[in-house]
Amino acid sequence: MSDLEVVRFVPERDQYAWTFGGVAPVARIRPPAILEVFTEDAFFGRVRSERDLVSEVCEFPFVNPQTGPFYIEGAQPGDTLAVHFVSITPARDWGASTTIPLFGALTNTHATALLNEPLPELVWLYQFDRDAQTCRFTARRGGFTVDLPMDPMHGTVGVAPASLEVRSSLVPDAFGGNMDTPEMRAGTTCYLGVNVEGALFSLGDGHARQGEGETCGVAVETAMNTVMVVDLIKGTPCPWPRLENDSYIMTTGSARPLEDAFRIAQTELIRWLASEYGMDTMDGYQLVSQGVEAPLANVVDANYTSVAKMPKRYLPGRSVMGGMHANLRELAAGYGG
Amino acid sequence: MSDLEVVRFVPERDQYAWTFGGVAPVARIRPPAILEVFTEDAFFGRVRSERDLVSEVCEFPFVNPQTGPFYIEGAQPGDTLAVHFVSITPARDWGASTTIPLFGALTNTHATALLNEPLPELVWLYQFDRDAQTCRFTARRGGFTVDLPMDPMHGTVGVAPASLEVRSSLVPDAFGGNMDTPEMRAGTTCYLGVNVEGALFSLGDGHARQGEGETCGVAVETAMNTVMVVDLIKGTPCPWPRLENDSYIMTTGSARPLEDAFRIAQTELIRWLASEYGMDTMDGYQLVSQGVEAPLANVVDANYTSVAKMPKRYLPGRSVMGGMHANLRELAAGYGG
Amino acid sequence: MSDLEVVRFVPERDQYAWTFGGVAPVARIRPPAILEVFTEDAFFGRVRSERDLVSEVCEFPFVNPQTGPFYIEGAQPGDTLAVHFVSITPARDWGASTTIPLFGALTNTHATALLNEPLPELVWLYQFDRDAQTCRFTARRGGFTVDLPMDPMHGTVGVAPASLEVRSSLVPDAFGGNMDTPEMRAGTTCYLGVNVEGALFSLGDGHARQGEGETCGVAVETAMNTVMVVDLIKGTPCPWPRLENDSYIMTTGSARPLEDAFRIAQTELIRWLASEYGMDTMDGYQLVSQGVEAPLANVVDANYTSVAKMPKRYLPGRSVMGGMHANLRELAAGYGG
Amino acid sequence: MSDLEVVRFVPERDQYAWTFGGVAPVARIRPPAILEVFTEDAFFGRVRSERDLVSEVCEFPFVNPQTGPFYIEGAQPGDTLAVHFVSITPARDWGASTTIPLFGALTNTHATALLNEPLPELVWLYQFDRDAQTCRFTARRGGFTVDLPMDPMHGTVGVAPASLEVRSSLVPDAFGGNMDTPEMRAGTTCYLGVNVEGALFSLGDGHARQGEGETCGVAVETAMNTVMVVDLIKGTPCPWPRLENDSYIMTTGSARPLEDAFRIAQTELIRWLASEYGMDTMDGYQLVSQGVEAPLANVVDANYTSVAKMPKRYLPGRSVMGGMHANLRELAAGYGG
Repeated sequence: MSDLEVVRFVPERDQYAWTFGGVAPVARIRPPAILEVFTEDAFFGRVRSERDLVSEVCEFPFVNPQTGPFYIEGAQPGDTLAVHFVSITPARDWGASTTIPLFGALTNTHATALLNEPLPELVWLYQFDRDAQTCRFTARRGGFTVDLPMDPMHGTVGVAPASLEVRSSLVPDAFGGNMDTPEMRAGTTCYLGVNVEGALFSLGDGHARQGEGETCGVAVETAMNTVMVVDLIKGTPCPWPRLENDSYIMTTGSARPLEDAFRIAQTELIRWLASEYGMDTMDGYQLVSQGVEAPLANVVDANYTSVAKMPKRYLPGRSVMGGMHANLRELAAGYGG
Repeated sequence: MSDLEVVRFVPERDQYAWTFGGVAPVARIRPPAILEVFTEDAFFGRVRSERDLVSEVCEFPFVNPQTGPFYIEGAQPGDTLAVHFVSITPARDWGASTTIPLFGALTNTHATALLNEPLPELVWLYQFDRDAQTCRFTARRGGFTVDLPMDPMHGTVGVAPASLEVRSSLVPDAFGGNMDTPEMRAGTTCYLGVNVEGALFSLGDGHARQGEGETCGVAVETAMNTVMVVDLIKGTPCPWPRLENDSYIMTTGSARPLEDAFRIAQTELIRWLASEYGMDTMDGYQLVSQGVEAPLANVVDANYTSVAKMPKRYLPGRSVMGGMHANLRELAAGYGG
Repeated sequence: MSDLEVVRFVPERDQYAWTFGGVAPVARIRPPAILEVFTEDAFFGRVRSERDLVSEVCEFPFVNPQTGPFYIEGAQPGDTLAVHFVSITPARDWGASTTIPLFGALTNTHATALLNEPLPELVWLYQFDRDAQTCRFTARRGGFTVDLPMDPMHGTVGVAPASLEVRSSLVPDAFGGNMDTPEMRAGTTCYLGVNVEGALFSLGDGHARQGEGETCGVAVETAMNTVMVVDLIKGTPCPWPRLENDSYIMTTGSARPLEDAFRIAQTELIRWLASEYGMDTMDGYQLVSQGVEAPLANVVDANYTSVAKMPKRYLPGRSVMGGMHANLRELAAGYGG
Repeated sequence: MSDLEVVRFVPERDQYAWTFGGVAPVARIRPPAILEVFTEDAFFGRVRSERDLVSEVCEFPFVNPQTGPFYIEGAQPGDTLAVHFVSITPARDWGASTTIPLFGALTNTHATALLNEPLPELVWLYQFDRDAQTCRFTARRGGFTVDLPMDPMHGTVGVAPASLEVRSSLVPDAFGGNMDTPEMRAGTTCYLGVNVEGALFSLGDGHARQGEGETCGVAVETAMNTVMVVDLIKGTPCPWPRLENDSYIMTTGSARPLEDAFRIAQTELIRWLASEYGMDTMDGYQLVSQGVEAPLANVVDANYTSVAKMPKRYLPGRSVMGGMHANLRELAAGYGG
């Protein structure tokens, strides 16, 4: 659609953000608009071979670089930012995954502080086959290989936090951030509550694919070229990030222990049903109890993230969020998405 | 297959078991054999209208009745029992769900002990349409109804526990029990490690369907007529319940907090890959990190249950557990399953 | 007091119990009565030198032997058993502590299942100085020694569980069991809710001393000669174990995660204030918030245990539990306690 | 000691800080120096009667005001700041405590998100008796009153966080912050690892007294006049806040779930013993297991805080942290502390 503003931003090496909040915007966007960006991988591009150990080539806290933040004109606290992912395309023909000392779900960590020796630090490189849309896992020992389906997504999508805070790009919370859910793929609309003027939206942490829970803490990390449609819902708050695709409405919760992440996502879903459809809370509790899908996003980050997915076919036939997802779908289609 | 023993057992009202362990067997089975049973619903059939509140009509601890236990001839500690579900068919045209005071994921409970007033106690009745294979949700307030797909399963499947213990049928743990995973459906083989001579297998808690996490703690509860093929794998232990269907191998973990349930299921999956395929543990950690699906089972019971599902197409082409699932599939097919 | 029945019981090697519930009573007691027992150490006496590794000399599940159970005449569900510890005296001149593979707060465990190698398995022997009332810690490496004060206690004190269950003596829960709190020392009265006819009281797991939290999972384990006064409070339930000494009333909670154990202990304390003093729940919440002491008991067992201690000097001047503690104190004094 | 610099700072109403990090320093301190400050109470002084509900009179995020930050000259990342509390004196004759909707250990919260109605919001005012050193609790219902001992402390003590973050003053973490431990009293030295140039130290949240765990989330809040001696340990890091008084060395951990807070505090204590005394890690694990005291600090804040206290009499006779506590004690004595 020629009448949509198109903002394209490819950061210079010194233009990445390492936090949500606390950073000046790199560009301003007048919604609705198309946003085209390049995102660097979570290693800042420094893991390129099996010899590139994160503990040696990365320099904390300069990991998980974010592209942005973008100042959304008109965005005020109490509004909701809607970001529809039109396409998420790996910018390289390969990705990398690693173990990282004292990080991951199945090892002692800085929080689950134990006396054990850390696990070994290893790198796995994945070659992508763009035609077949696969990425190849190769075992470090024993030679087993398998082609896994590509399923490109962004691990980190968020806005500036509330409460005057600035959070590391490794953290997921109510502002979004490092949620690491495979649901953040092309075709999905992400809703984020605005906490500060201009929202200050940024994103990064592209994954060619990821298991649910992101068990070792690292997905198939790669740089991405990503196209979004961005719009604003005035006067409607969004306490925790929500997602929508053609088949599901979804809520997220990020907390520790993991049951609290689950509780947040599930209550948010019930409250969403109440606000959109006038559904009684106890009826919503019952319907969600029988109908919800509850895939884990991450069980490794500073907060763990749980997703609650409700099939739209189980719900009244009205759209949510004022029909924003369909609107953005249409705008994206006009744009070629 | 006329040469398979068929054991059929429909309990009298006084023949149900309320625990795993601590109960004399109701029948003996020489594996492989067909087992046909009736299971009563978790309310012992006492919730039949919206006026039948659990706190009034049920008598603790006499809830979640189990059919069994069955003594499996030849089963010794260190063996694994394999139970393939041929069919799970609701025995009634309706099911019931409820809230129960101080039980469920989104309320104060006996364990998450708070000072709040409990939530209201309510009953929802579901009518089943056997042709359409749906169960109808009807909101208590406001009149919304929706037909949800039937997806019959058993919430509770297990053997006698280790360590001389006897556990309530409400508990899931390493012996199986009240795991409440929707994966326990027809077409699935469940593997259970044997802890005592004869294994003492029992099952119950039929659900016409259930959301992942079983948020309010109660699914669409109904009586079931269930057909299984039961066999024994001698000399192979199974530390935590595993499941297999045509597409996935799956592990389970049951613990609190929920991240520990996740950790158990994920390490068990990695160790399974190591033992079946000789895969290096770190390679297994990596492959699982990118390939696993991690749906929640329950976040309400005495232990929470997490499932780790690995698509077989991501794994070497050999079968697991000595090909038991395919064998039981075949036996079931001969039997009409 | 010559008119108190005295029951003395020193088990034969084959008379120990390994569970709460599921065991026939070894003796009957008509309360109030004096109970004198010998308890073997948690290793069943098999760790006697630095070469005696638990994984080699102990035979699971035959660890943590209990002396009992004792059938308390007249005890019915809904009553409360009161056990006042008159004296707890090490029966040997030495104790032992160890690390145990996959057990302890600072290591991967069967529940917190990680891929790390287990910690080393080691034994520390402690010599007791009965005159100085100390036990000597000697570092395995480097020669540091220090005399720690003796503070004898029982880690495991309980009755048969509710819900038809039988639980390992390694488990703490509402029935008591392996709470591992240093508060279970001489001078303390322990209140336990009765779940089955006769209560079926047993105890064991003597500790010469223990840190709060029992970090490595093993205290200074030793055999004990223990004298108690046992009595019954008819018609008063006790949902979770309570303790009382001359200065404090105390509640316990055992659960995972640890905050749930805390929540149970704290709500139980507030409800105790409400039932004994008619204190409004919100006022109790406030008074407890400012006055409570909250030492950890164990952060290693199947459930973690938190203790809530309220100084009696902050409370109305009336005694609790009908003055039972003072009564038992007096009976104990008559007996020489 | 006339040769110590004395910095005195009483903030204007618009000079308080609401975060750790992200705020320009209010003064510079050349260590060692005396620091005298006034701190406003956590309500910013706005709760002055039983009618002043936090939800009405406070304006989030402007709660828990901090006095500071102070720029410590010479402080670099990798150094440790030492703050010895000489005196902590209530600046008013009264304090206030409250319940706050969706906050506290025994209620549903924003993280433990449930469907229950929140608890009632109430205020309790405490009058202080400076001669008797008591604060008087008065029940809102039923008229019970009791004088509790004063035990003045600071709930919030910290420096700017690492990782470019800015954290709300309600958060405790590795930078210190809202730890809410009663151990932060006069006579104690607090060690804080420096993350940014100048450390940026601030403090607030005075409590006339507090129970362990701060159950309802609010202590007896009051303004304080506080005197400290501040010094710097160059080249020694301090990963998590440590405390020291004449009798104990102490470590803290802040995390969720609570067992992770416990694990951090306990491993930090063992590592401290290793670094100061060369004690083998496994020997430290054993000694701590038998000797540690583990009082809870808070089970209500964004992270829960656990304290590990080791009696100095159980340790080798050398001082820790280069004798800093004794040095500051002496400087304080010279100053009249």
